[in-house]
Amino acid sequence: MVMGINEKIGLVKRNTVEIIGEEELKKLLKEKKSPSVYIGTAPTGRPHVGYFIWGLKVADLLEAGFKVKILLADMHAALDNTPWNILDERYKYYERIIPLMIQAIGAGIKNLEFVKGSSFELTRDYIFDVLKMSSFTSIRDANKAASDVVKMGKNPKLSGLIYPIMQALDEQYLGVDAQLGGTDQRKIFVLARENHLKMGYKPRIEIMFPLLPGLIGEKMSASDERSKIDLLDDEKTIKNKLKNAEMIAGDSNNGVMIFLEHVIMTIKKDKREKFLVKRDKKYGGNLEYETYEEIKKDFIKKKLHPLDLKNAVAKEISELLKPIHKHKKELEKLAKKSWK
Amino acid sequence: MVMGINEKIGLVKRNTVEIIGEEELKKLLKEKKSPSVYIGTAPTGRPHVGYFIWGLKVADLLEAGFKVKILLADMHAALDNTPWNILDERYKYYERIIPLMIQAIGAGIKNLEFVKGSSFELTRDYIFDVLKMSSFTSIRDANKAASDVVKMGKNPKLSGLIYPIMQALDEQYLGVDAQLGGTDQRKIFVLARENHLKMGYKPRIEIMFPLLPGLIGEKMSASDERSKIDLLDDEKTIKNKLKNAEMIAGDSNNGVMIFLEHVIMTIKKDKREKFLVKRDKKYGGNLEYETYEEIKKDFIKKKLHPLDLKNAVAKEISELLKPIHKHKKELEKLAKKSWK
Repeated sequence: MVMGINEKIGLVKRNTVEIIGEEELKKLLKEKKSPSVYIGTAPTGRPHVGYFIWGLKVADLLEAGFKVKILLADMHAALDNTPWNILDERYKYYERIIPLMIQAIGAGIKNLEFVKGSSFELTRDYIFDVLKMSSFTSIRDANKAASDVVKMGKNPKLSGLIYPIMQALDEQYLGVDAQLGGTDQRKIFVLARENHLKMGYKPRIEIMFPLLPGLIGEKMSASDERSKIDLLDDEKTIKNKLKNAEMIAGDSNNGVMIFLEHVIMTIKKDKREKFLVKRDKKYGGNLEYETYEEIKKDFIKKKLHPLDLKNAVAKEISELLKPIHKHKKELEKLAKKSWK
Repeated sequence: MVMGINEKIGLVKRNTVEIIGEEELKKLLKEKKSPSVYIGTAPTGRPHVGYFIWGLKVADLLEAGFKVKILLADMHAALDNTPWNILDERYKYYERIIPLMIQAIGAGIKNLEFVKGSSFELTRDYIFDVLKMSSFTSIRDANKAASDVVKMGKNPKLSGLIYPIMQALDEQYLGVDAQLGGTDQRKIFVLARENHLKMGYKPRIEIMFPLLPGLIGEKMSASDERSKIDLLDDEKTIKNKLKNAEMIAGDSNNGVMIFLEHVIMTIKKDKREKFLVKRDKKYGGNLEYETYEEIKKDFIKKKLHPLDLKNAVAKEISELLKPIHKHKKELEKLAKKSWK
């Protein structure tokens, strides 16, 4: 099936909040049969189900005809406080689980490529450009760019300022037309476009997806593993974690429903599948939904109880993770070496 | 002639103001027949006669049995605001004139080696360590270390913070036991020693020579070429520049006499030559001095007129520059491409 330009643009823009260089994007899609885009993921924390947000954008871009490179940014992880002695272990985990996650979505991966950061970021030309770009970038601008992404802390390290410079150059050295990232990347994206002009390089198109609230709720610490659903969690664990998720009957403004909208119902829609809420007959029996809007409507009207919805979401997440869990033993072994 | 340990230490310490790791230096000279030291010079400004100050320390260290590496630090020049498009030209000029300067002193150069910064500073291992060290170094500490050396300006560039990190790693990657530098390098030296411990490397011995006032005087701008005697200046130009040098009859505290003491009389003493002041018979005739102290004594007593002394110094500088001036045409051609 051949997709038209407008259809492609629609797919690229779906579930995004901002694109810097939207006119350039239109031109690109018209002129280039196989444009390319990259997204970087630094092996810092354990990947959780929130990663599906960008995984789905990767799937959209593949579907729209892009070649997609996923940068497993080991050097960036180190620049952002990952201890150097466990860097390789974390990289190995990401290298194994991220492709499984993308495959779990059901995306065609013919045009998907994985690149290890250190495979090209320590080469002569790249580093020459890092030094060159650092001489065009004020400490102030580097600091500003890094501030939403890098954990700077009370006594920030120099590495945090090199981080955005290297991310900008990744666009050039990966030879891509665009970069995909969360809205937290915005300042780095802007710096990258400005700096590429100074270097005589082409500024890239920057595609941003929204940063969604945590699935379980903001109140729990981000570093607390109970606040996130790990890609290796089994259904029981997911159910228990979701039980603790903040969700007030009748109020759809919560992490579970945002995840339901952006991830689960996006996949369901593409696959033309229905969302099933199992319910005892005495409570009215099972419910089936085709769109998120229908779910939201029932929830606001309190026709759908939080616990029933949570259990249905838990079931769906568990299904989504099944292809990953085929390799659970191997992955758990790798995870043990990478995180305490 | 075999030199004893104490004699070697005396020669290393001559005309220095501080050595960090003096006990390590003693141990080194006892245990190692050919210890090694490096000094870096970044091809930023045009080399002037002030460069003889460190040139003489290089000669001392060669004489004391050291292998000496002179780092022609092209990358550091770029990190310190040298435009990237004329970097290579400036490097070529330094590459040609610095060896001529060292030879002009009359030092044995069998154990002298020149190394281009970019020949090893863009390699994988080196850059890996730059990133690693940057993750151990706070922005604050890097800023402090750079502040006396790098021209930071009002809106300092990130490159200025990378500068001290690379200088620290040069010690490791040049495989030397010690570094030589002016007292302006002190904060970088201290950072280097701290950082080497964090990296699991050996802290190096840091040898510092004094930063002397300008030959002509502080009042003129450092960037004003009239305030410095260029290595290519002829005798007439030197005389004219020295005429403008601040020098009050009877007061030995001036740049000309400090240069006379640290450079000219140091060389004269080593060569067992006398310092000659030509003077008309009607003013008392020629004067000859074996030591700086004798000159100073006569000057304070006003037995030696500033202009006579200036002319004698001009004559000596001109003699010192003779071996360099054999290549003047070639050097002037190179200089023209490097500085406007």
